[in-house]
Amino acid sequence: MTQPTYRRIVLAVRPEGEPTNDHFRLETVPVPEPGPGQVLIRILWLSLDPYMRGRMSAAKSYAKPVEIGEVMEGGTVGEVVASNHPGYAPGDFVLSHSGWQEYAIADGASVRKLDPNLAPLSTPLGVLGMPGMTAYTGLLNIGQPKSGETVVVAAAAGPVGSAVGQIAKIKGCYVVGIAGGPEKCAYLLNELGFDAAIDHRAPDMPERLAEACSRGIDIYFENVGGEVWNAVFPLLNDFARIPVCGLVAHYNDTTLPSGPDRTPLLMRAILSKRLTLRGFIVRDFASQAEEFRREVGTWLRAGQIRYREDVAEGLENALEAFIGMLKGRNFGKMLVRVRRD
Amino acid sequence: MTQPTYRRIVLAVRPEGEPTNDHFRLETVPVPEPGPGQVLIRILWLSLDPYMRGRMSAAKSYAKPVEIGEVMEGGTVGEVVASNHPGYAPGDFVLSHSGWQEYAIADGASVRKLDPNLAPLSTPLGVLGMPGMTAYTGLLNIGQPKSGETVVVAAAAGPVGSAVGQIAKIKGCYVVGIAGGPEKCAYLLNELGFDAAIDHRAPDMPERLAEACSRGIDIYFENVGGEVWNAVFPLLNDFARIPVCGLVAHYNDTTLPSGPDRTPLLMRAILSKRLTLRGFIVRDFASQAEEFRREVGTWLRAGQIRYREDVAEGLENALEAFIGMLKGRNFGKMLVRVRRD
Repeated sequence: MTQPTYRRIVLAVRPEGEPTNDHFRLETVPVPEPGPGQVLIRILWLSLDPYMRGRMSAAKSYAKPVEIGEVMEGGTVGEVVASNHPGYAPGDFVLSHSGWQEYAIADGASVRKLDPNLAPLSTPLGVLGMPGMTAYTGLLNIGQPKSGETVVVAAAAGPVGSAVGQIAKIKGCYVVGIAGGPEKCAYLLNELGFDAAIDHRAPDMPERLAEACSRGIDIYFENVGGEVWNAVFPLLNDFARIPVCGLVAHYNDTTLPSGPDRTPLLMRAILSKRLTLRGFIVRDFASQAEEFRREVGTWLRAGQIRYREDVAEGLENALEAFIGMLKGRNFGKMLVRVRRD
Repeated sequence: MTQPTYRRIVLAVRPEGEPTNDHFRLETVPVPEPGPGQVLIRILWLSLDPYMRGRMSAAKSYAKPVEIGEVMEGGTVGEVVASNHPGYAPGDFVLSHSGWQEYAIADGASVRKLDPNLAPLSTPLGVLGMPGMTAYTGLLNIGQPKSGETVVVAAAAGPVGSAVGQIAKIKGCYVVGIAGGPEKCAYLLNELGFDAAIDHRAPDMPERLAEACSRGIDIYFENVGGEVWNAVFPLLNDFARIPVCGLVAHYNDTTLPSGPDRTPLLMRAILSKRLTLRGFIVRDFASQAEEFRREVGTWLRAGQIRYREDVAEGLENALEAFIGMLKGRNFGKMLVRVRRD
């Protein structure tokens, strides 16, 4: 009798700049047995998110890096196939942080059971999961949107940006989304109800943004950096709030932009416009998880919040999908359908 | 009979870089009569503060610039010599914003009567006035000091910095002051009770600061910028708060520092350390003025807060004192004793 095996992707070499196949290794290893209190999970969905680029680097950040030889980390939804934990039985669906692999062992205490009748099984990785909660907590706690204010968000067709924009609409704001290409911009306007959509690839993007934000910008939800930040910066109103959630334009940077050093310009603007810049990660607002799931779940069922998914088929396509996502090639929440059977 | 005259300093030309005598004009003009509801004030004390450099420039800021030919603005304490307002009589002492001149007309509604028995008449321009309230509101609202945290403040022997440090000590923090020269550093340690004092002129200032802040920095009260900010930046702890109150190191800048552009480093740190940078001016917290005067007044009378003044004699010396202050030559709150008689 052959022992069953599964595939997993481990970090082989730390990438400098853009990750490639050479930085990872696809391994095939035996499916393990769960120990006491553990469950064996067959992974159905793997979430791909920009923060993963940070985990590939050794640089100090808010979380420790993935070690060389370790499975790349990531949020996952799977089905319990064996359980040594009284709370789980085979056939249960669970949310876990099992990473880029087809099977995983997890402590029962570290996973969360999912009701497949409440919402599609992929949504705890997207609109009802980390990206949605990132949008919800960052916008409400730091952005503090007030009716009539202008909110700008980039990567607006992605899972965080689309939730930011839709929640801001629910709060009565005027919402401008920035996204790559006419198809995504049409989606923002026609499907998500944004007030304006700007294609960041347009050579006159800064002028278009200024035109769309005729009353300035009160909240800029920062998840991109780079040229979008440069276009937003002069439009910020007094007392603008900038939740700093991500800087995907910079994640593959290996050098700083050429001079002059514009840091004093930013500090001067923070002072003279009394800006608030505050960085956060979703974990900082962990105590709001229940409230988030309840409120966004309600909006979702009421059709006030919509979402879109972009699915790569099979673990072997995870890396290509991840690299494409950093370039904005995905359209909606990037997922890998790890196992279809 | 000769009509009495007084002297005033008006902005003649907008300075680029460091202000000089050529940018101002000392005028002698007749003492005016107060109109209905107005008072005529003989100015005793003029406050000199770094923000005034901003008013000399046409660049957009949180307040409109002084116009060419207008009297330089500034906080003042004076004595009412004639009154057409029922609330004031000759001999009353008042706080007003009358600028760089020996006499001024003010609407009675725009001035505040002072009790010379409660505190020295100069203190409403310093520890019990704008600088003290800047320290109090910025530190408490934005810094949110908690007992045991490390607080760093530059220009620490000045009126804002010395109040920041002393209030932080009252709140149980470990306080590190940065100041120019051994005399000011000794004052911070021996007179104000700071835990450590760093001379910013020391060539190894960054190393000394790192040594003094062995547990990192939780609050950096930013009123300087430049090299001090560069030394503070790598020491900031996760969740550090940075009230941005002033950038005196940059006020005379005419160009940006050479490259590379380090803005992405700052944004990356805001994200990964979840920093809060928030600019403010004292006016943003105007509703806390009563609370400030009550609480700091109590600390002052109890000897928990001390202050120091640096006095220039006569209006004709105001500009030299102002220029010196931007270079850190003052030792304590910079004041001009406008009239001694």
